[in-house]
Parts: sequence; structure tokens; C-alpha cells
Amino acid sequence: MDKVGIAILGLGVVGGGTYKILTGHAEDYKKTHNLDIKIECVLERNQERIKKFGVSAGTVVNNIAEVCSNPEVDIVIETLGGVEPAKSFVLSALKAGKSVVTSNKELYCKYGYELESTAKKNNCGLFYEATCVGGVPVIRAMLDNLQGNKITSLMGIINGTTNYILTKMSVCGGSYGEILKEAQALGYAESDPASDVEGFDSAYKLSILSSIAFNTKIPYTEIYREGITEIDYTDIKYAEKLGFKVKLLAIGKCGDKGIEVRVHPALIKSDHPLANVNDSFNAVFITGDSVGDVMLYGRGAGALPTGSAIVGDVIYCATHNNFNYSTFENTEKADTATKFVKNFSSAYYIRINATDKAGVLSHVTSVLGKNGISVAQVIQDSVETDGNVTIVLITHKTNEKSVNKAIKDINSNDISAKVVSILRVA
Amino acid sequence: MDKVGIAILGLGVVGGGTYKILTGHAEDYKKTHNLDIKIECVLERNQERIKKFGVSAGTVVNNIAEVCSNPEVDIVIETLGGVEPAKSFVLSALKAGKSVVTSNKELYCKYGYELESTAKKNNCGLFYEATCVGGVPVIRAMLDNLQGNKITSLMGIINGTTNYILTKMSVCGGSYGEILKEAQALGYAESDPASDVEGFDSAYKLSILSSIAFNTKIPYTEIYREGITEIDYTDIKYAEKLGFKVKLLAIGKCGDKGIEVRVHPALIKSDHPLANVNDSFNAVFITGDSVGDVMLYGRGAGALPTGSAIVGDVIYCATHNNFNYSTFENTEKADTATKFVKNFSSAYYIRINATDKAGVLSHVTSVLGKNGISVAQVIQDSVETDGNVTIVLITHKTNEKSVNKAIKDINSNDISAKVVSILRVA
Repeated sequence: MDKVGIAILGLGVVGGGTYKILTGHAEDYKKTHNLDIKIECVLERNQERIKKFGVSAGTVVNNIAEVCSNPEVDIVIETLGGVEPAKSFVLSALKAGKSVVTSNKELYCKYGYELESTAKKNNCGLFYEATCVGGVPVIRAMLDNLQGNKITSLMGIINGTTNYILTKMSVCGGSYGEILKEAQALGYAESDPASDVEGFDSAYKLSILSSIAFNTKIPYTEIYREGITEIDYTDIKYAEKLGFKVKLLAIGKCGDKGIEVRVHPALIKSDHPLANVNDSFNAVFITGDSVGDVMLYGRGAGALPTGSAIVGDVIYCATHNNFNYSTFENTEKADTATKFVKNFSSAYYIRINATDKAGVLSHVTSVLGKNGISVAQVIQDSVETDGNVTIVLITHKTNEKSVNKAIKDINSNDISAKVVSILRVA
Repeated sequence: MDKVGIAILGLGVVGGGTYKILTGHAEDYKKTHNLDIKIECVLERNQERIKKFGVSAGTVVNNIAEVCSNPEVDIVIETLGGVEPAKSFVLSALKAGKSVVTSNKELYCKYGYELESTAKKNNCGLFYEATCVGGVPVIRAMLDNLQGNKITSLMGIINGTTNYILTKMSVCGGSYGEILKEAQALGYAESDPASDVEGFDSAYKLSILSSIAFNTKIPYTEIYREGITEIDYTDIKYAEKLGFKVKLLAIGKCGDKGIEVRVHPALIKSDHPLANVNDSFNAVFITGDSVGDVMLYGRGAGALPTGSAIVGDVIYCATHNNFNYSTFENTEKADTATKFVKNFSSAYYIRINATDKAGVLSHVTSVLGKNGISVAQVIQDSVETDGNVTIVLITHKTNEKSVNKAIKDINSNDISAKVVSILRVA
């Protein structure tokens, strides 16, 4: 039986969930993995949390030095979140020869190279499955299962809060603002929701996932990012009429022209497996040149699902001699050879408000045509009481530049047609 | 750069796909994994296959002894299928100190213990991700990601042929026999389809997957097995009216009363993620005590998807010092402490044909009630020209014994109500 000593930094949601799993399953792991996993210390100053989880006084420590100097600690679990003090703590632990398991996406996304090179130098492991999509085994799937593929694209619903809000808007109706308040009251959204609803959280995760998928560093600063704060219920309903759902997607593509990475709300065909990923569930849809399409689905956040990913890494670390190093982590910056595509190709959903005059639809489609854009689907709704009509279009595949030019042309016409909404189609 | 010498046993569908991936990506793996993977020999006597893949004469060998005595061969890939000669070949390779990667579910399911103990004795690895669900990373997900969970259930659509047939029956209509013929013409079903349509293939895979999930050997002989040959289009349509799809499910459950393992067609709620797994796609839905629900979806068969799983194992084997041994493989038999539940609990779909007399529905429900079965949903269809009515029921949860007794009682009544179909509800 191998003894494995654990330190947990932070007993917040994820740290607490991990503590519960490790203590609750300690006897199981002796049987299933011949491992005697013991929590040697917990770095936490909040007495309420310590009480809540019943951590014994002898286990609680006040500073990282006590963790690093404890010879019984083999693996340090970091669940503090944010860059500091997490970064300094993780570096100290690695320098003390402890392997680290982290759920900290911001830290790994921004400083993965520094952490990894420190881990290598000190001959210890750095594990980060829990940084992305909670308990869904997407990182190891790419590292240890799909690694024989050239991954050409990945597309994910990788933020639970925004997926909950969009699902509720679709199912129950209601504005973004109303549903956000409801989500905050239920604890599904933070009181400051910016990181989720403005797509930062998804961008951090996409940076980590696409770096692995495309075997080269994709800094999050290269990721185009747009949140869901401008999503209008009207567009969700029109999208559904046209056979689509609206989701906040994280998209990575690797093709001949380079790498395309973007987080934004998008229409996705209702029969696509991602379209049926609802509420706070998450999923990543990966396409490889050999495996074809694979989708990994599950809970993308929460104490126990994220704890499950951490404990998976702990057991992996304790039973493998392999330290999980990336093959691409050469720098925090992108490789100079990497080309990033910024003029994305995609189909577009366009909603236009126009005065009900003869020829308005023909004018709009002609402007689109002049910009090389053809129309795939169209709805012209009956005249409103204000004498206006709504025209909703789905274009064939075009690109950002052409569509932006077309919108400008439509808006500057003299028949008072105005583009109200525009969304990409995945 | 590490040199990795490969032997492939058999250039059939999967062996051929693997050959294509390894040769096509050889330069990539040098860059991504610092591995120089070279196919040193191919054991294949079929000249057409050798020609098709352009295998050079110097690489082709005629017998396993040549493979085993070749010092350049590190890893042997076995894609022959069936028990013999695959078993003898794999044992010979392991005894010669070669690690083995296999896609052979029947072999691993029936002789996993013998193979694994031979691998251990000879200090080499045995990898079998490709035995189950093609390119979908389900085995490693359970071994290396979800291993901190107590997995309470797994439910899968793990046979592509039967899922193709059931999807076509649902979408296009038509009898089982007609659609099977169509599937055979398209190459989606074998000329002798028994292994697929009678559930043997699913049972082999369920044996492997549930053994890992529940950390104890589940011999396939303990698995209740029922195929799709008796499925009637009428039942698919009634099921859909009631809000269900019909799928061939492989189900494993581990609860207080013991382990329940079964392969049979079943109704599943239309909004369940598995209900939308269509055509030849496969998926496994796993529930763990920490992670909650996870679903892994993708192509469950085919040259390149299964080849992807094999190549994933090859690279894993070449880059890890861990040999993937199970923690539960103590014998080919079930542990004496393992209890298997045979009187399954489930809800049931029952279709009854009855003469249209007053009180027939009340009689049927009263017989069910006497057997402790209550009704959740019911459809009574309008009277047919022959004066008969169809009654379709979904029961609340009951068990096999009660439902079998109730059917006997219904059939032996004097008002000519006869049970025509019965299906479990997942």
C-alpha cells in the first residue's frame, strides 16, 4: 500500500468538495488502488469553512511554508482561484518537490509555461484536468486518447452560468436581465457575473483546451471574445423558428489558413448534439481526422464534479510515473510560426427592422448580394402596429469583413431598414 | 527521439485503419510526441490487403514467431478478432516481452485475466481502449479520470449496427427485416448479423466496461441478453407517442442489492441525452457519486475511429511507464462476494390487443394492480375494423417477476385481452 499525503490550499467550493470526496472515499481507494490517501494539511484561515468540513485543528495550517516543509505532503491541491497568491503558492510547492493538482483556469491559462517548467525542473507533476469543464474528462481525453489525431476543430459549451441563462431564456421566455437576477438568486451566477457572462471564463478554458488540441500555445489574448449580455429573447425565438438554438460557444479551428479561436453566442442547428446541452450542463465536441466527431458531456462546475476531476488527477499522479507535461508549452506566448485567422468564415443570422415599403426585402438581399453574401433562409414577419416589418435572414457562409460591410450598407440606405441583431451561425 | 517498433496482426478493417493512421502521421508524432513510430512488420497472408495498403514485401511476415523474435518490435497490435488464433498470438507476444494493444473485445472479455497476468509476469503492457465503443475514450476515462468516483450506473448504446437499424425504423418506418437487409446492403450489418442484432457484441463490451466501472470482474455470462430481432415498428411508434425512443441499451447498475447487468431493447425518455444518439453513433452515459452524469459520444466502430483508439494506446504505451493493469482482474470468474441481481426493477411498456368489450381496460389495470403494478401512462386506441382495440401502458417501477406474473394473468383471462409486446423502460 502506497501512502499519499495531500495538502489542500483553500476550502472554498471546489476545495471543500475535494476534501469531502477524499475523506469520504479514503477506505475505497485502499481497496481499488492500493493507495492510502491522507489529507495532511489544509491551508485555510476561514474558521467557518474549517468548522463546516470538520477539519481537525492539527490539520489546519496558516501559511504555504508549513505545507512546503511538511515531508508527509506529496501532492498539493490548489483550489484558490485567481492569480495571486495561488501562483506563488504553486511555485513554492513545486520548488519543494511536491506535485500539484490545480483547478485554477486563470492561473494555468496565463502562467502554464512558468508552472510547467518549474515542475519539470523539480521533477514533479502538474495536473490540471479540473481547470476545464469540471468533471468532464476532456483534457486527458485529448492527451491520452485522441493524441494520434490531428484535431481540426473543437466546439464547446464550457460555461455553466451562461448556458443556464440561455436555456431559461429559451424555455421560459424573459429578458437576459430578469433571468440573470433569477440565476444569481439561485446561486447559479455570481453577484459580479462579468467573468461568466462576458465570456472570460470560457476564453481561459478555450485557451487551455485549444493549446492541447492544436499542440501549440494559444494565449487567451488571441481569443475573440463576446458575451451574452446583448442577447435578446426575440432572437432566440426567431432562431428556433429557423431550426437553431442559441448557445455561448467556444470555438477552436485549425485549418490551412491558420488557427481560429473565438468565444461568442452563436446559432447551432437544433439537431446538433451541442444544441441539446441544457441548463448548467457543459459539453465539448471535438473533431479529429481519424476519430471523427466525439462529444464529452457532463457537469462543467460544482463542488463534487470539479472535485472528481481533482481526485482523478491525484490518483493518476500517485499511480503513474508520467508527469503529464505538455508537448507544446514552450512559452506563454504563441509560437511565431502560428498564424491566427481573424476574419472568421461563418454563416450569419441577421435581424432587420424596416418600414413596410415595397421592395425592402429585395433591397436588403441586393445589398447582401453586392457584398458577395447569399441568403439561405428568410422570414419576413407580418407588419407591426408601428408599420414596421421584421426581416430575419440566415446567410450562406461568408466572412466577418463582408458581413460588416453589408450591415453598414444596409443601415445607410434610404428606405429605413436597420440591422437590429447579428449573430454567427456555428 | 524514442524509436517505437510496431507489429500489426491482421490488416482487416481495424488493422488497415491503424496502418493508415500510423503511416500517415509518422512525421507528426515525431514533432508532437518525440516518437519515431515505425511499422516493423505486418502479419497478414491476404495478398489483396497487402497490396491495398501498399505494405512493402520486407514488412510482411507469415507467422507470429517472426514477430516475437524481431528485436525491433516493441508493441504488437492485435486486430484479428475472435478467440483463436488471436489469443495464442497475444500470449506469445507478451511472453516475448512485447506490449500488446488490442481491439478484440471477445478475447479481452473472455480471457482478460490470463492475458493480463501474462503481461504482468513479463513486465509489459496490455491496452484495450479499442475493444469498446471505437474511438470514444470511455475505458481511459473510467481508469484515469473518474476513478475517484463510486460509479453507480452506466448505460450505453454501444453497438452501431443495431442503433442504425432502430434509428432507420423510427425515422423511415419499415419492419426490422426490411431495414436489416438495407443495412446489410450498405455494409452497416454483417451478412451473419447475429453477434450484433442478438446483443452478443454489446454484452462483451458491457462485460469489459462494467468490470472497470464496478471494480470487480463481471463475466459476460452473467449478463442478461436480449436482441432487437423481435422489435416491431408499431411499438416504436407508440413509444414515441408516449415520449420515448426505443434503443438497444447495455445497462450496468451497482447498488445495495448487488450488481445488475443487462443488454436489451428499452424505452428511454426522448429528452435523455442517449435518446438523441442516432444512426451508427454510440454513447455511454455514466453516473458517479461525485461527478454526477457524464456522457461520452462518438463513432463506436469503423476503421479510423477504432484505429484512433489503438494509436492512442500505442502512444500512451510509448510515453508512460504505467502498464494499465486493472485493479480487479483476479480471475475470469466473478468474485464470490459479488451478488448479481436477476429480478430487475424497471418500468415496463406493455401493448395489449383486446376485444372491444366494456370493462377491458379496467380488467387489465385491475390484474396489474393485483400484482402490485400501477400504471403511469395509458393509450387506448380506437376500435380496429376487426373489432379489436389496442391498449398501450407504461407502468410505474416494478420488477421482472411481478410483470411476468401479471402478463400471464392478463393472457389467461376470459375477455380475450392478450399481451402482444413488452419492453423495459430505462
